[in-house]
Amino acid sequence: MKICIDGFGGDNSPLAVLQAATQSAKELNIEIVITGNEKELKKTAEENNIALSNITFADAASVISVDEEPNKILKEYKDSSMAVGLKLLADNEVDAFVSAGSTGALIFGSTFIVKRIKGVKRPVISVSIPGKSGYYTLLDCGANSECRAEMLVQFAKMGSIYHKAIFATANPKVGLINIGTEETKGDTLRQEAFNLLNEEKNLNFIGNVEARDLSDNICDVAVCDGFMGNVLLKMTEGLAHLFMGSIKDIFYKNFLTKLSALMIKKQLKDFKKKFDYKEVGGTPILGVNGVVIKAHGSSDAKALKNAILQAKKCVENNIIENIKKKLNDIDIVDKD
Amino acid sequence: MKICIDGFGGDNSPLAVLQAATQSAKELNIEIVITGNEKELKKTAEENNIALSNITFADAASVISVDEEPNKILKEYKDSSMAVGLKLLADNEVDAFVSAGSTGALIFGSTFIVKRIKGVKRPVISVSIPGKSGYYTLLDCGANSECRAEMLVQFAKMGSIYHKAIFATANPKVGLINIGTEETKGDTLRQEAFNLLNEEKNLNFIGNVEARDLSDNICDVAVCDGFMGNVLLKMTEGLAHLFMGSIKDIFYKNFLTKLSALMIKKQLKDFKKKFDYKEVGGTPILGVNGVVIKAHGSSDAKALKNAILQAKKCVENNIIENIKKKLNDIDIVDKD
Repeated sequence: MKICIDGFGGDNSPLAVLQAATQSAKELNIEIVITGNEKELKKTAEENNIALSNITFADAASVISVDEEPNKILKEYKDSSMAVGLKLLADNEVDAFVSAGSTGALIFGSTFIVKRIKGVKRPVISVSIPGKSGYYTLLDCGANSECRAEMLVQFAKMGSIYHKAIFATANPKVGLINIGTEETKGDTLRQEAFNLLNEEKNLNFIGNVEARDLSDNICDVAVCDGFMGNVLLKMTEGLAHLFMGSIKDIFYKNFLTKLSALMIKKQLKDFKKKFDYKEVGGTPILGVNGVVIKAHGSSDAKALKNAILQAKKCVENNIIENIKKKLNDIDIVDKD
Repeated sequence: MKICIDGFGGDNSPLAVLQAATQSAKELNIEIVITGNEKELKKTAEENNIALSNITFADAASVISVDEEPNKILKEYKDSSMAVGLKLLADNEVDAFVSAGSTGALIFGSTFIVKRIKGVKRPVISVSIPGKSGYYTLLDCGANSECRAEMLVQFAKMGSIYHKAIFATANPKVGLINIGTEETKGDTLRQEAFNLLNEEKNLNFIGNVEARDLSDNICDVAVCDGFMGNVLLKMTEGLAHLFMGSIKDIFYKNFLTKLSALMIKKQLKDFKKKFDYKEVGGTPILGVNGVVIKAHGSSDAKALKNAILQAKKCVENNIIENIKKKLNDIDIVDKD
């Protein structure tokens, strides 16, 4: 398997990329292609004593920054580290592409360089969020501000395939985020989407779900429009930050509270790990004709490694082929 | 001041109502009117040795349950404990009305019995949520699933008046919840609302805000449509529940962790208090021609007492008169 990673995407590139790439190549037994200025990449590797085994480079002259208009990836930045990686994926030279660069440019580039899977109305960003007893996958997290009901149905299908690939859940439960669980709840979009989802035979649709039950893992895949999903995701981030900060405050009060923290050091570490986005890696852009993973802009080597692992799982589980089948309502038969 | 409370609203009525009423009458030095079956109320008071000083009753033959169609409050349940209270408020017999009963019926009844303030397009539910350095007020939390831009502007005005009355914030900062802070972000509704809000001179509008910054108290009043607000509120509840549960799990592991919990008992209590909805009381239904407070269905006496206190603050601060002025763009001059 050959996974490509953007050498100049994210705040900690290129060093974190080089570290993640070498470790992944070794541990996951895969080949890694790093895009970007080859000279600079090699220099950084040398300066940091990084041995480049099973690593190759795909030279790219420029970098598209997060402040740049996303559509510039097609012309002005067609030689950027991101565009070069997407082109390799489109040409089947690599099996997946990972980038911690501009989200907008990655969605735009994925849509127009890798191109949509036939029949897919819109690509979608999905994020897996920790709940009480495991992760649930929320989508759309921001690719499409305004959605039609049939788009939500496709999100549900793609989300199911992805969630199953990453978390090995046999038949992911799909919920439609709404303001109540009754069939008739919500606005026109929700009511239409409910009816369409309810008709899908190859989908484990459990009906409307309320946001308060997401953390209790009421469903594995939670579907909503991109405006709602983006706001919910950011609300989750903000609240996690608030709670983590409040817990820190509890223990930093005095000698006794600091001693108390020492006594539950392991538990606090587990707690922090449970809510750490770096554990999942990145978020896939689903609906395009290849595995594309968007890693967080502030990703360190560990987060990038997890994003590469995530890409590997997507490839191993044939998510692209399975999405094609699911969209055409063909039964997917598991190998195992 | 005379505050009316629904004797048969909420899971813990009528006992919790009687307890809250007697304590409030004494501590806040106000008169309380309790609606509902007078015989049953007096019997419950007697059985529980509750002395009824400064308490009067307004007899009501029925109770409208949460499962009932809200509009039935006008006909089938016009003699319910909720309808009787709303009628007293409409007739200026009392200064405010508090109920832990059906949200739908209370909104419907407030709108058609107490009636809207002239010029108000739609009543709105606002909830004050704890952030890092105090509460912020989120509205609409579910009264209006589909909103127009001018409704959001009215929400902003009413939310400002209310937030100022309850939290004594001089000039509440108003934010529009969006998927980015730039002016041009979001869907049509957000873009239109942004432009309208930006033109308001008597509003401290700070622009678009992201949900992740709400917990950091980036604004005092956060405005969105009722669908979004309802989902955000429930998400907040779900996440708070998840975090509280996770913290409990940390300390219930073994002897050492339990000992550790003992050492930070006070801090844990403060932490819990900070995120306890009972501390705020209830949520006002803004835009109707009288102070109406919806208390949580599971409210205990403490929560109901806080809801009564909240109603008192609204009356003391003339929120109805101030909303009328603000909607007509008349400067509100503080007495102090």
